[in-house]
Amino acid sequence: MTATTEGAGRVTVLGLGAMGSAIARTFLDRGHPTTVWNRTAAKAAPLAEAGATAAATAAEAVAAAPLVVVCLLDGAAVEEVLASVGTAIEGKVLVNLTSGSPAQARATERWAAEHGAGYLDGKLMGDPPYIGTDNILIPVSGSGDAWAAHETTLKELGGVAYHGADAGAAAVEFNAQVAMGYEMLIGFLHVLKLVRAEGGDVAAFGERLAGSVAAYPPLLTAMAKAVANGDYPPDLGPLRVQAALMDDLIAHRETAGVESVRMRQVKDLMDRRIADGHGEEGFSGLFELLGKD
Amino acid sequence: MTATTEGAGRVTVLGLGAMGSAIARTFLDRGHPTTVWNRTAAKAAPLAEAGATAAATAAEAVAAAPLVVVCLLDGAAVEEVLASVGTAIEGKVLVNLTSGSPAQARATERWAAEHGAGYLDGKLMGDPPYIGTDNILIPVSGSGDAWAAHETTLKELGGVAYHGADAGAAAVEFNAQVAMGYEMLIGFLHVLKLVRAEGGDVAAFGERLAGSVAAYPPLLTAMAKAVANGDYPPDLGPLRVQAALMDDLIAHRETAGVESVRMRQVKDLMDRRIADGHGEEGFSGLFELLGKD
Ligand SMILES: NC(=O)c1ccc[n+]([C@@H]2O[C@H](COP(=O)([O-])OP(=O)(O)OC[C@H]3O[C@@H](n4cnc5c(N)ncnc54)[C@H](OP(=O)(O)O)[C@@H]3O)[C@@H](O)[C@H]2O)c1
Ligand SMILES: NC(=O)c1ccc[n+]([C@@H]2O[C@H](COP(=O)([O-])OP(=O)(O)OC[C@H]3O[C@@H](n4cnc5c(N)ncnc54)[C@H](OP(=O)(O)O)[C@@H]3O)[C@@H](O)[C@H]2O)c1
Repeated sequence: MTATTEGAGRVTVLGLGAMGSAIARTFLDRGHPTTVWNRTAAKAAPLAEAGATAAATAAEAVAAAPLVVVCLLDGAAVEEVLASVGTAIEGKVLVNLTSGSPAQARATERWAAEHGAGYLDGKLMGDPPYIGTDNILIPVSGSGDAWAAHETTLKELGGVAYHGADAGAAAVEFNAQVAMGYEMLIGFLHVLKLVRAEGGDVAAFGERLAGSVAAYPPLLTAMAKAVANGDYPPDLGPLRVQAALMDDLIAHRETAGVESVRMRQVKDLMDRRIADGHGEEGFSGLFELLGKD
Repeated sequence: MTATTEGAGRVTVLGLGAMGSAIARTFLDRGHPTTVWNRTAAKAAPLAEAGATAAATAAEAVAAAPLVVVCLLDGAAVEEVLASVGTAIEGKVLVNLTSGSPAQARATERWAAEHGAGYLDGKLMGDPPYIGTDNILIPVSGSGDAWAAHETTLKELGGVAYHGADAGAAAVEFNAQVAMGYEMLIGFLHVLKLVRAEGGDVAAFGERLAGSVAAYPPLLTAMAKAVANGDYPPDLGPLRVQAALMDDLIAHRETAGVESVRMRQVKDLMDRRIADGHGEEGFSGLFELLGKD
């Protein structure tokens, strides 16, 4: 099967939440005959109106196409739905776009292999309205054959990139990127709390801070290189100078009633790194101490 | 005194570390007669060669100019140096660019008032090579008269912005922005650890993640607005959907030996917010729970 003949091939989408519906609609829009199924059947109606075939059961939907895309709430939902699909999956390629861990991805791959199906695991990094655009990143990993057969179709969903044969690789990428996002966002809410406690204008501050965050990407790239090389040049100045301001920063947060668990962790790591003789190096060197407590 | 006649006025710089030296050199380059002092006298030599006057004591340096800029390691160093300056500060404007807390800024302002000096507190957000360019942001706050008299000179140091009469305001801005930076950077090192633990290429991952971070500023602006309005629309999807992936994400980090204190805090806040009936709103709503534990 070449990418071209497969270009407008039949697809099945299991799960029609915000994401599954956007996925099914994109396939329809690009001319793929699309079969859909959802636990709560009502969610299939708008897609059926747009030209999709609504199947009565997940097994029936799976039988309708060689490429089966699953997008449900979580791993538990995937297990439940796949159990009801059973042998209908034989000879198909299953692409699971549900969020989850690498271990779950590898377990679903084993289930697919036991049932005679190819497996790709993918993770959605972006909002439902971005499906079908380059604004959503979708790391995918698993069977190289399945990827070769369906790459063109899958790339219609967004910025899809293949991360290799380990079915867990897409989940590693996702869990690392999502965690970084949440670290930023919870840190952001905490500093908004600080600004509010001090009587500041949080909306105006948020705009200024967004401007500062926009300047961080080159520093992140440089720090990742430092970690890769195991060589930690001063980044935000020498660690010795950075550490000197932390006690005041922490005292200020605590006076203002803002929790400082993470800032105290940072200070502790800085102190240990300086005590180890690395005070003239950069923040990136804290990497050496992570997981050593 | 108008901004123009003051434009190339005499200045004194106390403290010639990486930052103080860059500050003194910028003033010299812009034509200001500059007097310098540093505890370790040797650091004054390159500046003296470039045309600065090296004073033997801090008090002598202060006597030489109406505008005195201080940039030392921390608040303790500032206290020590100012104690040695004493009455020489009378009638001058003291601008303290040393990192520290709002409480320290206000205390130094009181010391200045008691000694008959005007006071501005400023904080340096950027690296020493950026002094004299728009790449370094310098929030300044304190005496409006001192600001009006020396605005032009101070703006030669970088992106200087006046944050009002409260001497502590610049430190609030600094402590909020710096903490956000450290939250991002420590989060970043943790996810690099995860990627390394999973056998990934940390440098390549760092570049991809830097690309993702570059897309966050509009979300931060929107979230700050949500907090300002006390109205929390879905941001990264509804909280209910976000929360569904956290247990797997945390389990994955723990399996890989990466600490998850912050991610468990985030999950706990999500669960509490959902239990309160806000599962269809966004992450920004966690703001309501901060400081309530
Ligand atoms: N929304 C976002 O912004 C976003 C962003 C990135 C990634 N994601 C990921 O995309 C996936 C889907 O999210 P979504 O936004 O589409 O969520 P959603 O709108 O809440 O939809 C959840 C879907 O899962 C189904 N489901 C849940 N439990 C089930 C079960 N036990 N058996 C059968 N079906 C079950 C629901 O069926 P019913 O209709 O019958 O309830 C629905 O189709 C999640 O893994 C999420 O983490 C979402
Ligand atoms: N470097 C950066 O990237 C950066 C970025 C943003 C903000 N800052 C802030 O800028 C300020 C200065 O940092 P820096 O990089 O210039 O630090 P630095 O190179 O280590 O210089 C520290 C300065 O403080 C003086 N000092 C320390 N303790 C003293 C004491 N007890 N009495 C008198 N002088 C004392 C030192 O004098 P000696 O020469 O005698 O030791 C030196 O002049 C700090 O508050 C820092 O947080 C720095």
